[in-house]
Amino acid sequence: MAKELKELTKRSVNYSQWYQDLVIKADLAENSAVRGCMVIKPYGYAIWEKMQRILDDMFKETGHVNAYFPLLIPKSFLSKEAEHVEGFAKECAVVTHYRLKTNHDGTGVVVDPAAKLEEELIIRPTSETIIWNTYRNWIQSYRDLPILCNQWANVMRWEMRTRLFLRTAEFLWQEGHTAHATREEAEIEAKKMQEVYANFAENYMAMPVIKGVKSASERFAGALDTYTIEAMMQDGKALQAGTSHFLGQNFGKAFDVTFIDKEGKSDYAWATSWGVSTRLIGALIMSHSDDNGLVLPPHLAPIQVVIVPIYRSEEQLAQISEKVNGIVANLKKMGISVKFDDADNKKPGWKFAEYELKGVPVRLAMGGRDLENNTIEVMRRDTLEKETITCDGIEEYVQNLLEEIQQNIFRKALDHRTASTITVDTYEEFKEKIEEGLFIMAHWDGTPETEEQIKNETKATIRCIPLAGDKTPGKCMVTGKPSAQRVLFARAY
Amino acid sequence: MAKELKELTKRSVNYSQWYQDLVIKADLAENSAVRGCMVIKPYGYAIWEKMQRILDDMFKETGHVNAYFPLLIPKSFLSKEAEHVEGFAKECAVVTHYRLKTNHDGTGVVVDPAAKLEEELIIRPTSETIIWNTYRNWIQSYRDLPILCNQWANVMRWEMRTRLFLRTAEFLWQEGHTAHATREEAEIEAKKMQEVYANFAENYMAMPVIKGVKSASERFAGALDTYTIEAMMQDGKALQAGTSHFLGQNFGKAFDVTFIDKEGKSDYAWATSWGVSTRLIGALIMSHSDDNGLVLPPHLAPIQVVIVPIYRSEEQLAQISEKVNGIVANLKKMGISVKFDDADNKKPGWKFAEYELKGVPVRLAMGGRDLENNTIEVMRRDTLEKETITCDGIEEYVQNLLEEIQQNIFRKALDHRTASTITVDTYEEFKEKIEEGLFIMAHWDGTPETEEQIKNETKATIRCIPLAGDKTPGKCMVTGKPSAQRVLFARAY
Repeated sequence: MAKELKELTKRSVNYSQWYQDLVIKADLAENSAVRGCMVIKPYGYAIWEKMQRILDDMFKETGHVNAYFPLLIPKSFLSKEAEHVEGFAKECAVVTHYRLKTNHDGTGVVVDPAAKLEEELIIRPTSETIIWNTYRNWIQSYRDLPILCNQWANVMRWEMRTRLFLRTAEFLWQEGHTAHATREEAEIEAKKMQEVYANFAENYMAMPVIKGVKSASERFAGALDTYTIEAMMQDGKALQAGTSHFLGQNFGKAFDVTFIDKEGKSDYAWATSWGVSTRLIGALIMSHSDDNGLVLPPHLAPIQVVIVPIYRSEEQLAQISEKVNGIVANLKKMGISVKFDDADNKKPGWKFAEYELKGVPVRLAMGGRDLENNTIEVMRRDTLEKETITCDGIEEYVQNLLEEIQQNIFRKALDHRTASTITVDTYEEFKEKIEEGLFIMAHWDGTPETEEQIKNETKATIRCIPLAGDKTPGKCMVTGKPSAQRVLFARAY
Repeated sequence: MAKELKELTKRSVNYSQWYQDLVIKADLAENSAVRGCMVIKPYGYAIWEKMQRILDDMFKETGHVNAYFPLLIPKSFLSKEAEHVEGFAKECAVVTHYRLKTNHDGTGVVVDPAAKLEEELIIRPTSETIIWNTYRNWIQSYRDLPILCNQWANVMRWEMRTRLFLRTAEFLWQEGHTAHATREEAEIEAKKMQEVYANFAENYMAMPVIKGVKSASERFAGALDTYTIEAMMQDGKALQAGTSHFLGQNFGKAFDVTFIDKEGKSDYAWATSWGVSTRLIGALIMSHSDDNGLVLPPHLAPIQVVIVPIYRSEEQLAQISEKVNGIVANLKKMGISVKFDDADNKKPGWKFAEYELKGVPVRLAMGGRDLENNTIEVMRRDTLEKETITCDGIEEYVQNLLEEIQQNIFRKALDHRTASTITVDTYEEFKEKIEEGLFIMAHWDGTPETEEQIKNETKATIRCIPLAGDKTPGKCMVTGKPSAQRVLFARAY
């Protein structure tokens, strides 16, 4: 283990390699035999399950229900919304046949040419088209609205350059798709879900985010407005962590979804869609983890507390176990996820390194002297600080410590972002500072041309037009034309 | 609603049409624009979510963890296990291209011939091949075993004749895939998961099942033994509700998954796989529901109790609501899922019919006189019996009633199965009785030839060789050759 740990590249040496190493060594995910598709290993999936459970509860609290729509979408559906097809056609996995036949000469199986589909099907890159085709039959009157559906599903976008969790051909996500009777209601919904995502990011992932709206060129293909939450990774790059789209009547019109309103007039339904994905696991890793391994926020850690016994004999282990089992039972009663690792084929030192790598927030260790003294050693993963304390009231101590760790890693990430966010007024300074891995607040003239120029010359994009903060107008740093407010620039994942 | 309800075909008239009507009218699922693929609507999906949660807890209690493997499988993987490819090649959706291109002449999108995959990918019909290809790298030593993974996923089998939930091209399921160091351990695992499924079927779905092992010709493609649970539907047909496969070393050998055992020798890993799917929702419907609509077991009902107010004025509604809100709060505290339907745009009669159709186990109704008398009307969905009782202790009454309904519908299904299961000794009687929709216990000589003959002549298949019950040997009803024990014959879904 010690040897393998050494192989975790230091962040200061190569941040990207550190990330890749950590995902593999912490057993979160790995590449599969299918290009761009990952295997999410049990420990990584356990984090996703925690995320799912929490988000699902939030969606239900805000009135949504789950449903499930087909994986495959007729090719023609994609073309019905002009911008949508431009956005997704280039990365579609296409199903053309529905049968293989076996060659009995031992050369395996071949596609059966007789089983060619009349119309090709694509694997959903996102489900607006198939869902709005379905909604057409669900919606006749304003009484049928709103429809507030969410779906947990896999989607596929044939990406050429993939990275585990951050960008994979197949990924898991949730996609909400809502239909409303009025523009206003749909806009409120889109903003509400942005709030839900921000709440989840900050209070569960301990990841501060900037809420904003995307510039036209960064919008979802088919949206009138895309609301986003943008997070800063440790290397100063931005990561788009969740988006919520106000789709106007684009899909209502494309799929002819009309309803009779309260006044008896026919109108097209208004739409939103919103999603977060397994990408969040990548964001989580790059927000908090360090050169020793993962640092997981207690609110999402699959194992919140691990207890390691340090013993010289079976008898001593039995004594320690008796003591520890009481603590385990109490912690479980408090809803804390705890593991007592008494496996005898691994040394305590190996276990310590392993749980550090896995980001378990609190590690307790009990040895012979602790047993005599009624004490226990507590290590917190975020600061690696150790202390030995009394066992009396250890459960409340641990509960409070978990909360403190949750707050501390949020604060740390927020401090980092604050220290790495600057305001810039000239394009020269911008070009210089963007190299340092910073969030830059700067004025922009609002045109896609200037945005494109900045992107081409600096690789920085407009992450969002922030909803909160300084709204003072100014002059575009590039063209000198009027700017309504500063916008957030950064290089991004 | 009254009109629509009338349109629910009676079971005695056409059982198959009744099923189809009910799935649609109770808003469980519908066909989609993609042939054979269904849309699972929110109410149907809510049942699936309940099933998932309970099964997932059961899997975790038996030591399993969740993971996620790729949707797409290289075509060549399928060929590596000879029987497996025979079983699945004929119903595979095949991905051949990874890009569409847009025609700017307005004719939409076409497949880009330049984006042809070197090797075709198939959408998983089941994941043994991609998972065992992954396990090769996870397993070196007996210390890495067992691996006990489960996956919740969508799969696709290109079925020509589909029926909502029962047989669809795409369906949702869970698939467990375990790897073991010994044959014995794998066999124990396969049988253990059959037990888990039987427990779930009987105690949550209220659906009695017969546990058995499949004959060779009914086995999963690639298995040495398939353990099954078989349920009887109301029409006397059998439904295979869950299977657990002992795969021997077939996939270990096909994918070269070896490990060093305790003695230092290399051996192939032993495998099991096991799964249940959204088909269970079809089984649930056909086990209990009636001509008025769904009958859901309380342990799986998304809404266990509905409360309908009957009022003449806003003031009266306010008084009733005050009283009902207290009951709602108490029921929720007891973990009971309850809905107070005070919507004012629907009449009580409409609501009654609606919740009957939706199979809500207990309906409470409170009117003005009830309010005066401190009473409430209780209707149980399974028997449609109504009574008016005091509000004092109504919560405990409802809790007990839910449990009684759960037991009652199980008993009813069991009684039906007992009354519809017969023992037959001659093939003449068999051919006559199989027309009546019965489970028939009969002797069989153990050969696939006789099995095939019976199937061709009667459409009945061997559902399983039961694990419990009469083990007396006898003579095959067709050939007169020796038979080890009676086996279960039925026509099946």
